[in-house]
Amino acid sequence: MEKKKNISMAVIKRLPKYHRYLKELMNNEVDRISSKDLGEKIGFTASQIRQDLNCFGDFGQQGYGYNVRELSNQISNILGLNKQYKAVIVGAGNIGQAIANYKFTKLGFEYTGIFDANPKLIGMKMQGVEIRDIDTLKEYLKDNKIDIGSICVPRINAQKVCDELIDGGVRGIWNFAPVDLIVPKDVTVENVHLSESLLTLIYLLQKKQE
Amino acid sequence: MEKKKNISMAVIKRLPKYHRYLKELMNNEVDRISSKDLGEKIGFTASQIRQDLNCFGDFGQQGYGYNVRELSNQISNILGLNKQYKAVIVGAGNIGQAIANYKFTKLGFEYTGIFDANPKLIGMKMQGVEIRDIDTLKEYLKDNKIDIGSICVPRINAQKVCDELIDGGVRGIWNFAPVDLIVPKDVTVENVHLSESLLTLIYLLQKKQE
Repeated sequence: MEKKKNISMAVIKRLPKYHRYLKELMNNEVDRISSKDLGEKIGFTASQIRQDLNCFGDFGQQGYGYNVRELSNQISNILGLNKQYKAVIVGAGNIGQAIANYKFTKLGFEYTGIFDANPKLIGMKMQGVEIRDIDTLKEYLKDNKIDIGSICVPRINAQKVCDELIDGGVRGIWNFAPVDLIVPKDVTVENVHLSESLLTLIYLLQKKQE
Repeated sequence: MEKKKNISMAVIKRLPKYHRYLKELMNNEVDRISSKDLGEKIGFTASQIRQDLNCFGDFGQQGYGYNVRELSNQISNILGLNKQYKAVIVGAGNIGQAIANYKFTKLGFEYTGIFDANPKLIGMKMQGVEIRDIDTLKEYLKDNKIDIGSICVPRINAQKVCDELIDGGVRGIWNFAPVDLIVPKDVTVENVHLSESLLTLIYLLQKKQE
């Protein structure tokens, strides 16, 4: 599908939201939904929804709406959720613990290793997964094919950890450190920058109060 | 400044990044920088940088570049960082702990209260701030003027907590629950949706491998 190549980041960023709402509709046993009703639920216009979903193929029928289960499955496929992903967490502090505790398993996502430099943490378990010495990360990556590395270390160590993950074959980096990582072109980085999110909130808050 | 009214979300989302890089330059005792060099550091084009900063006023001089300290101060002012913000955290689980431990104080941001429903946590301290019974939140908000509420509770409780915060005068919501909150127009919500971030990563990762 040639169409797929030119999908904007804005559309891609909206897909997980579609995914979440469609799962919710399925849980509520809704079989079909119009783009208008789906739009009202999500907070997009009907035309936005039709436009977004058209990027990926022909979903829905005029005057009938979308088959919820079918659309949900297709979006899962587009998102790559029909595969399994193995991941490691580097940094077992609060953020590392938070994401280890999060129920991502439904997304076909499994943490197989957690690494930290703190001797007090090494050997403990988080969600049944042992915390290992960060010095063994390199070896671990040699023995295990890992898709995604979550970087939850202080900013000063983040690039070093990133380089080690990439050397070990990891191609997806989920970065929580407040730093822009430098990576080769075949590596994908998704940042969760908490202080930038907070600054955005503060900016919008004061604008509204002006 | 009439100009300010029409600033796109895309520009606003980039401001915290400017803020971070300029602070770094100041720490490294860099006095001035051209839009080209700043662009190379941040990963934007020089023209993008000039365009962004022009939205907010006349910064920089042709052939001279930007005065780093001045630009940094002006961006801090634009971001609203010249004020103090009082915040509460609702939910003292891993995410709540992670953000309580984060060094946001530099941003003029202070947590004055942390609330949870778990009797085992109530009375404990996080970063010197006592964890209080969530049933006392309403009263606390009556007695204290709070600007921002961080919602770190499970999704099923998030809207209820949000309503309570808003009733208590909070106008900025920093939401970590995987749900789109319904709020009045004068309230600002900034979401950190971890599973949507992870889904974006997985999508981009598989696209690159196709």
